[in-house]
Amino acid sequence: MTATGSTRRFGMLIGLREECANDYVALHAGPGVRDLLAAANIRNFSIFLHRLPDGRLYEFGYYEYAGENYEADMAALAAHPRNTEWLALCDPMQLPLPGETGWAEMNQVFYNP
Amino acid sequence: MTATGSTRRFGMLIGLREECANDYVALHAGPGVRDLLAAANIRNFSIFLHRLPDGRLYEFGYYEYAGENYEADMAALAAHPRNTEWLALCDPMQLPLPGETGWAEMNQVFYNP
Repeated sequence: MTATGSTRRFGMLIGLREECANDYVALHAGPGVRDLLAAANIRNFSIFLHRLPDGRLYEFGYYEYAGENYEADMAALAAHPRNTEWLALCDPMQLPLPGETGWAEMNQVFYNP
Repeated sequence: MTATGSTRRFGMLIGLREECANDYVALHAGPGVRDLLAAANIRNFSIFLHRLPDGRLYEFGYYEYAGENYEADMAALAAHPRNTEWLALCDPMQLPLPGETGWAEMNQVFYNP
């Protein structure tokens, strides 16, 4: 995670169940919780899919946080009923890495503006 | 890869040799080819490291392309002697995924500004 001005950058990783891939992508084409992410000051959010050499699908997420209080914004997002409903749809499609309960946060080693 | 206005977003993936991880990170803390990336209209470039369940280190790259001719800018970057020298240092540290000769481009399935 790197900060430039008031922006912090996050990279995260999680597995995706093979049988859920199409539904996951279709679900994310819709409005989902895009408005709640924006309200939580989460910007420029991309999710990429790739099949790794172990034969499994993984999701790589990238986003920027542009607010002033990350913990408070994430707590408010997590507490929103519509976010809870959204996660109840998405979480069962995903396979957290061993030792994780959700997305694993990755270690940023390079940043060039 | 998603385009918004004139910006296109890329996610990419490659393995990193365990014994090279420290050198790779140290090399990327320096100036390297940051100026050449900027001249090629590559913006907001992050690299994240993570150890996957197969026990190996992987690099996840994210960048945005803000120019008007991606192929021409990438060709000019690839042809720059200082970029060739840089890749001669970095490439041997990396382990492309099976079937790839360099970074694998990932498939973008979600974008929220």
